[in-house]
Amino acid sequence: MRLPIRSLLSSWRLGKRSSTDTGRRGLSGVTMRLVQFCRQGEEGAIRVGVQLDAGQGVVDLKHFDSALPSTMREFLQMGERAMEQAQRALSSGQCVVPLSEVRLLPPVTAPEKVVCVGMNYRDHCLEQNAPIPKEPIIFSKFPSAITGPYDDITLPEESEEVDWEVELAFVIGRKGRHIKEEEALSYVAGFTVANDVSARDWQMRRNGKQWLLGKTFDSFCPLGPALVTTAAIKDPHSLGICCRVNGITVQDSNTNQMIFRTEKLVAWVSQFVTLSPGDVFLTGTPPGVGVFRKPPVFLKKGDVVECKIDEIGLIRNAVV
Amino acid sequence: MRLPIRSLLSSWRLGKRSSTDTGRRGLSGVTMRLVQFCRQGEEGAIRVGVQLDAGQGVVDLKHFDSALPSTMREFLQMGERAMEQAQRALSSGQCVVPLSEVRLLPPVTAPEKVVCVGMNYRDHCLEQNAPIPKEPIIFSKFPSAITGPYDDITLPEESEEVDWEVELAFVIGRKGRHIKEEEALSYVAGFTVANDVSARDWQMRRNGKQWLLGKTFDSFCPLGPALVTTAAIKDPHSLGICCRVNGITVQDSNTNQMIFRTEKLVAWVSQFVTLSPGDVFLTGTPPGVGVFRKPPVFLKKGDVVECKIDEIGLIRNAVV
Repeated sequence: MRLPIRSLLSSWRLGKRSSTDTGRRGLSGVTMRLVQFCRQGEEGAIRVGVQLDAGQGVVDLKHFDSALPSTMREFLQMGERAMEQAQRALSSGQCVVPLSEVRLLPPVTAPEKVVCVGMNYRDHCLEQNAPIPKEPIIFSKFPSAITGPYDDITLPEESEEVDWEVELAFVIGRKGRHIKEEEALSYVAGFTVANDVSARDWQMRRNGKQWLLGKTFDSFCPLGPALVTTAAIKDPHSLGICCRVNGITVQDSNTNQMIFRTEKLVAWVSQFVTLSPGDVFLTGTPPGVGVFRKPPVFLKKGDVVECKIDEIGLIRNAVV
Repeated sequence: MRLPIRSLLSSWRLGKRSSTDTGRRGLSGVTMRLVQFCRQGEEGAIRVGVQLDAGQGVVDLKHFDSALPSTMREFLQMGERAMEQAQRALSSGQCVVPLSEVRLLPPVTAPEKVVCVGMNYRDHCLEQNAPIPKEPIIFSKFPSAITGPYDDITLPEESEEVDWEVELAFVIGRKGRHIKEEEALSYVAGFTVANDVSARDWQMRRNGKQWLLGKTFDSFCPLGPALVTTAAIKDPHSLGICCRVNGITVQDSNTNQMIFRTEKLVAWVSQFVTLSPGDVFLTGTPPGVGVFRKPPVFLKKGDVVECKIDEIGLIRNAVV
């Protein structure tokens, strides 16, 4: 089931986007909505683009400059130079592909890491009577779980308890290890919306209580629609964040409830591993997940899940 | 600290290699020892090669046929055609780089997944009075943890309890989901040796008891020296497996102690995720790890850890 993109853009009004450059934050001071897409009829061919306002289409970066790469990960690896050239492409008004010919893909595919954070919203901890963690709890998904902003979530036969989790995601823009909190935002290329789809039976009761399997079924990481550059967001830790299932609001909170913020998470994880351009972080979910409802509620075939974060965007995924 | 390769090859006699093709097993019936390497002085440039017997050097595949790719992951993605061309290169006797000009790299780098199995040796479960698991326990490392067969293990400041774990590793050769056990070996390109280096404090007591962080520090996955094709190994589940620290044997078992074997692990994990060429599986460790010794023993700077599996090879990593 593929949902029409046009209807999505109008279905919820996105929060007002900050258009002022708040200075050197993120990989560069550039404010853009970067996407990966393919043209209709060219399914395998990934392209990197910049979204225009209000459904006016997408600028095809490789068409503008054939030296620009075809995937977001390579684009981010090129660093500032790629960002600046993308800005030029956007300003040129050229190489625009109309929305009707575009299929949006996840803004990042095949990252080296999908880093996830558990129990990272104060109100989500209260919901399950859990103590506020003193350190971030880090787990992961395999990159094969990533799927597009309007793609289907496939309900696996192996689980009876598939749940939603809207999350603020961010993407690393440059390589680093032992990054200081004060410098952490300069390693973040931008933010996007994620659904950390979770098979609760596998996460909580099977696999020796290691969460990985329950979190990493194919299609369990819808992502998108755009990678909104860090400088384009006034304050990533003060954004409305919500999830709707079949039009009913099930999660409704604010990223100001995050216990460990972007800067802390970058610094924390980089104590253990070298971070690389394209690495995706999912920063935890607010209350309202299905498993803690009384009685619990889980996703079933035919459901439609929408995850939305102010200033960033909305993803909508049908459950099949 | 870089250890000379030549001394390694002679330091332990490897088990006798089967040279007979036991028929259609693995990605192809081809028997080879595939490696990734770089030439001295060309550090960044990964090449795929085939090891000759007894330290006679490495056949440079891209030199033999420029259409062959530069990384093992791409080589495996090419499938049978690449394997057959590598066999031709080996037979030709051409394009041999002498061992003195070769630096061996991990046989696979940047896989989509590093899948690890916990508690998978009967004798290792007995050692810790743990019940034999009824299902595989799956966790992961990030690909950034992978390091070469003779590279250093970097002791992180953040841990006081870094431990060794010799493991049989295998590498996926073709894409698949919901793979049947009967067909599973045809998805396995080959086997190699791994050290599942583990920070026990982080694995067992921190991070909400999710094992990931303790397992995934940079350099915590030494791998190699070669990817030995499936057809070249008579029976991967009947191989001597051991680990020595500073010359003293600390683990000494046989892969016949594995609870869930290669075929089962491929089938199990492919219930959850699509497996792709290059995916690395670490299949669990036998008894003798440091944390269960009385008193516990952990790695310290200056130690040298050797992991060896009959018919496959030996890796040797200094702790710095």
